[in-house]
Amino acid sequence: RYGEAESEDMVGVVTGLAWTEVGGEILTIESVMVPGKGKVQHTGKLGDVMQESVSAAMSYVRSRSTNFGIKPTLFERRDLHVHVPEGATPKDGPSAGIAMATSIVSVLTGIPVRKDVAMTGEITLRGRVLPIGGLKEKLLAALRSGTTTVFIPKDNEKDLADIPDNVKKGLTIIPVSHVDEVIASALVRKPEAIAWEEPPEPPAPRATDGEAGKPALPH
Amino acid sequence: RYGEAESEDMVGVVTGLAWTEVGGEILTIESVMVPGKGKVQHTGKLGDVMQESVSAAMSYVRSRSTNFGIKPTLFERRDLHVHVPEGATPKDGPSAGIAMATSIVSVLTGIPVRKDVAMTGEITLRGRVLPIGGLKEKLLAALRSGTTTVFIPKDNEKDLADIPDNVKKGLTIIPVSHVDEVIASALVRKPEAIAWEEPPEPPAPRATDGEAGKPALPH
Amino acid sequence: RYGEAESEDMVGVVTGLAWTEVGGEILTIESVMVPGKGKVQHTGKLGDVMQESVSAAMSYVRSRSTNFGIKPTLFERRDLHVHVPEGATPKDGPSAGIAMATSIVSVLTGIPVRKDVAMTGEITLRGRVLPIGGLKEKLLAALRSGTTTVFIPKDNEKDLADIPDNVKKGLTIIPVSHVDEVIASALVRKPEAIAWEEPPEPPAPRATDGEAGKPALPH
Amino acid sequence: RYGEAESEDMVGVVTGLAWTEVGGEILTIESVMVPGKGKVQHTGKLGDVMQESVSAAMSYVRSRSTNFGIKPTLFERRDLHVHVPEGATPKDGPSAGIAMATSIVSVLTGIPVRKDVAMTGEITLRGRVLPIGGLKEKLLAALRSGTTTVFIPKDNEKDLADIPDNVKKGLTIIPVSHVDEVIASALVRKPEAIAWEEPPEPPAPRATDGEAGKPALPH
Amino acid sequence: RYGEAESEDMVGVVTGLAWTEVGGEILTIESVMVPGKGKVQHTGKLGDVMQESVSAAMSYVRSRSTNFGIKPTLFERRDLHVHVPEGATPKDGPSAGIAMATSIVSVLTGIPVRKDVAMTGEITLRGRVLPIGGLKEKLLAALRSGTTTVFIPKDNEKDLADIPDNVKKGLTIIPVSHVDEVIASALVRKPEAIAWEEPPEPPAPRATDGEAGKPALPH
Amino acid sequence: RYGEAESEDMVGVVTGLAWTEVGGEILTIESVMVPGKGKVQHTGKLGDVMQESVSAAMSYVRSRSTNFGIKPTLFERRDLHVHVPEGATPKDGPSAGIAMATSIVSVLTGIPVRKDVAMTGEITLRGRVLPIGGLKEKLLAALRSGTTTVFIPKDNEKDLADIPDNVKKGLTIIPVSHVDEVIASALVRKPEAIAWEEPPEPPAPRATDGEAGKPALPH
Ligand SMILES: [Ca+2]
Ligand SMILES: [Ca+2]
Ligand SMILES: [Ca+2]
Ligand SMILES: [Ca+2]
Ligand SMILES: [Ca+2]
Ligand SMILES: [Ca+2]
Ligand SMILES: [Ca+2]
Ligand SMILES: [Ca+2]
Ligand SMILES: [Ca+2]
Ligand SMILES: [Ca+2]
Ligand SMILES: [Ca+2]
Ligand SMILES: [Ca+2]
Repeated sequence: RYGEAESEDMVGVVTGLAWTEVGGEILTIESVMVPGKGKVQHTGKLGDVMQESVSAAMSYVRSRSTNFGIKPTLFERRDLHVHVPEGATPKDGPSAGIAMATSIVSVLTGIPVRKDVAMTGEITLRGRVLPIGGLKEKLLAALRSGTTTVFIPKDNEKDLADIPDNVKKGLTIIPVSHVDEVIASALVRKPEAIAWEEPPEPPAPRATDGEAGKPALPH
Repeated sequence: RYGEAESEDMVGVVTGLAWTEVGGEILTIESVMVPGKGKVQHTGKLGDVMQESVSAAMSYVRSRSTNFGIKPTLFERRDLHVHVPEGATPKDGPSAGIAMATSIVSVLTGIPVRKDVAMTGEITLRGRVLPIGGLKEKLLAALRSGTTTVFIPKDNEKDLADIPDNVKKGLTIIPVSHVDEVIASALVRKPEAIAWEEPPEPPAPRATDGEAGKPALPH
Repeated sequence: RYGEAESEDMVGVVTGLAWTEVGGEILTIESVMVPGKGKVQHTGKLGDVMQESVSAAMSYVRSRSTNFGIKPTLFERRDLHVHVPEGATPKDGPSAGIAMATSIVSVLTGIPVRKDVAMTGEITLRGRVLPIGGLKEKLLAALRSGTTTVFIPKDNEKDLADIPDNVKKGLTIIPVSHVDEVIASALVRKPEAIAWEEPPEPPAPRATDGEAGKPALPH
Repeated sequence: RYGEAESEDMVGVVTGLAWTEVGGEILTIESVMVPGKGKVQHTGKLGDVMQESVSAAMSYVRSRSTNFGIKPTLFERRDLHVHVPEGATPKDGPSAGIAMATSIVSVLTGIPVRKDVAMTGEITLRGRVLPIGGLKEKLLAALRSGTTTVFIPKDNEKDLADIPDNVKKGLTIIPVSHVDEVIASALVRKPEAIAWEEPPEPPAPRATDGEAGKPALPH
Repeated sequence: RYGEAESEDMVGVVTGLAWTEVGGEILTIESVMVPGKGKVQHTGKLGDVMQESVSAAMSYVRSRSTNFGIKPTLFERRDLHVHVPEGATPKDGPSAGIAMATSIVSVLTGIPVRKDVAMTGEITLRGRVLPIGGLKEKLLAALRSGTTTVFIPKDNEKDLADIPDNVKKGLTIIPVSHVDEVIASALVRKPEAIAWEEPPEPPAPRATDGEAGKPALPH
Repeated sequence: RYGEAESEDMVGVVTGLAWTEVGGEILTIESVMVPGKGKVQHTGKLGDVMQESVSAAMSYVRSRSTNFGIKPTLFERRDLHVHVPEGATPKDGPSAGIAMATSIVSVLTGIPVRKDVAMTGEITLRGRVLPIGGLKEKLLAALRSGTTTVFIPKDNEKDLADIPDNVKKGLTIIPVSHVDEVIASALVRKPEAIAWEEPPEPPAPRATDGEAGKPALPH
């Protein structure tokens, strides 16, 4: 039933947490992979900031793909589609960033996401997790939905003082400063890094010391 | 005659249900296939949410295409065009999602849609059917149009209590939680899954354990 | 002279009928073909609905091209340009749909359009002709312009009761429910269907029953 | 000096005539050809209608290119740029259409335009010349600028009754109904048609009578 | 120091002259060349007219490239970027046209621009120099900045009567009617024309006199 | 912790300085490299001026890439993504230009940026550093964040008179007039120029003196 934690571990499906004036609620992030060229499509009436959040998550994953066992060449053959139901509800903000990254890694590796996990945190291009607002409302929503574990930004750890005890008792709350900590734990198994060596480049042109420092493009 | 159920089973033509302030009405979704590259065009003055709904339906079908007997390579050679007449009437909302997906599968497989079927329900990227509004008005419109079977979201089952008995008697109402249930029943025959094996990838580059975990892209 | 029926049968030139607050008038639809890739360009200050109407007409013709004797491969080498003079007059609405389709078939087959014919009707993706408004004003404009035959939507047949007798006497009015009826009669000769067989696809990958139903895209 | 007729015959440069509240003035249309793919770029703060006018002129010329001695394959290797100085003055309207077409034919054939000629008239996709407004003001501007010959639309011939005698005496006014009449006379020599035969198409697939009329695209 | 004439001759850097309500000031136009396909990128908050001015300058240079010793094939391998600092100041108007063209020729030929030169004038597609406004304010700004030579439009020569004598004494003012005069003098050496012969076209198809004048595109 | 200088030298991560009505603050610029074609993507709600600033920085680096040891061919295989957290905060202005360039060189060379360095300054296409506003507020923010060295524009040197002594004592302030000075010092090691020779062009066509100066494009 919509608004509840997932009933099974699924590939590409991650539970995020949103916060509006009327309280917190869970936000499902879904990704699928289709044949393509490395593009990311997004739907679900995402605002500008959330759209950029998808882009940042994607670039983080692409720039570190071998760390997650994803061959860089996969992006030459696949597009991603990230959707956040319900389709008619406008959504915005950067706090779903780590959920986007987790969903993307899950769908690209085929490793399911643990069904009892939720998460909130802005992501940066190098994977840092930045603080978010509405921690209390989000944790309450997570608890209501049946989630058991919630990843939150390390920089929000101080806000835990204001969280009611029953919430803190009902949830395993894990503060993180890097998205890799989330990916390692939220997937049903940790992705394993692979070695990768680029195909050799075309041979470098003849080096002529005397020319170093001059403009490289002849007119 | 426009506004009535179809008079024959047709490929790519699905009856959806719309709901406006002045009541429910049926909505015809038409798809055709033309030579192309896997793009989807839409016409019929579709609002942003309904446009995203077409995209989500398409990505769902593409990401599971072999389940429906559709070769993934078909998308390298075909575009789709989804149209919702009447052309001058603005339309919006996510509730035509499962009708979009059904129309797309029909046109890609060449299997006609049963002419006496109508449907309403939002689709997610993994095929879940989310609840919609205006169930009563939509069912009345279905009945008026001569439809005999209507697929509705499982999460709207509770709203059936408010539906007049003559409507429930006049229609076979089938609550569904996944779009595959719709596709299996609304087409004149259930699409059969095919086996598919990707062409072998270029050989993986020489694996060097010591390099695993380092950035994959040399500078 | 502008505003009159054509003085000779021409390829790609069709007389449509428009209806504004100040009465009906004829609308010339012109199409030409240039080298290209299957795109359609439109000019003449066409509003959104009329633009979508061009797209729907084009997709109908493309999806059925062999019925009209048009090789599907023609679209790999040709673009179309549809223009509706006068260039400074804004135009909108779906009722020129069947005229667009007729113009497109004419230019793609090289078969001229009968000069004494006019037409009005919305087109759907499967070629159905939907009803239009302003029938009386349009028929008056057709009569004034020297047209002798007018195709109208079957669903507008009931409106003929309100049309003055002199108009009905002066014009041959042909109600149609499918655009193929129009194309068969409005061109100086009926396009003949051709047989067409797609080039064989690359051989299907080895089918392994046990894998049917699994996701088709390896990670 | 700007605002006067040209002092020599030039390739791609045509004198058009504009009409604003403060009177008529001449409008220089300039085109150049650069390596490209058949695109047309336009500058000079052209409004929507004038932009569409450039497109219509270009499609007319492309669709009839061999009539003007232009090989269809030229468009695979060339782009055009149409500019209407002065750059800061907004311009709009369809009446420069025949001047656009003349400029384009001139630059594509390399045949200069006669320096003492001006012209006004809307163009359609099949080369018809439609009537324009402000004939009197435009002819006065042509006279002032030193032009000796002006092409006007045939449908504006009736407006010549209102033109002062000294204007009619000072100018050779040539009413035209098709742009080819303009091109034949305004260039310093009439372009000569060339024969052209398309390269043979790939052989048609095996024709099987029984399949004619069926959809051409297998699923 | 910003706002002064350059301290050395540089490739791609040209001093233009702007005129606002608060007086004249110098405007630096900078161009660089990067690998690409003949595109031009512009930055510096350029308004629509100035953007079109960049396009016109580029098309002029491309259409005459061999006159400046630039191989047409260079544009298949290079993009240009034209920037007008300061980045936060909006700029508009056509009067930097000849400075744009000079900057583009400089960067494409690798010939530096004379550091003591400034210029103002609109450019047309065939290289004509059109008059500009604010001549006095612009010349004052040129003088203040340390410039010694200023190119102005021939059509502004008449405005020199209103310029204070000390300005006219402090500057060498050169009226020009064509941008080639500017390029020949403002670069540290005049670009030399090269001969260029297009690679032979594919052989013309068999000419059949009887077919001349017919449409070139078979249906 | 966000808002503090970095705790380690990192590739592609540069500390910029922003200035708003409520004071100065540090701005982290992050870049990563992904497979691509030389495009630059930017996120972080960057305004038009800051977006153009990214473009200018990129073109500067591309046009001089061999000076920094970057092979021009790298751009045929890589895209860049520049992000400025926090994602929900709008940012604008040109003063992050030199930080953008430094971040881009770092990520393209793989040389980390010194963690104790901050910088502010507009960049031009030829690498000049233009003055910025809010120097005092920016230096205070740098000091608060733990930065030890700040690069500022040479043209802002005069503003140092107004900076409190404790700030000037707590920071090494380095005025620069060219971005290469920044790149040489802010990276943990100075990038070394490489020699580069373009692959030979296709042989020049036969030169015919008599044709020099004529238009290069046959019609
Ligand atoms: Ca909800
Ligand atoms: Ca959020
Ligand atoms: Ca209706
Ligand atoms: Ca709906
Ligand atoms: Ca009219
Ligand atoms: Ca209409
Ligand atoms: Ca003027
Ligand atoms: Ca006009
Ligand atoms: Ca300034
Ligand atoms: Ca200006
Ligand atoms: Ca902040
Ligand atoms: Ca700034």
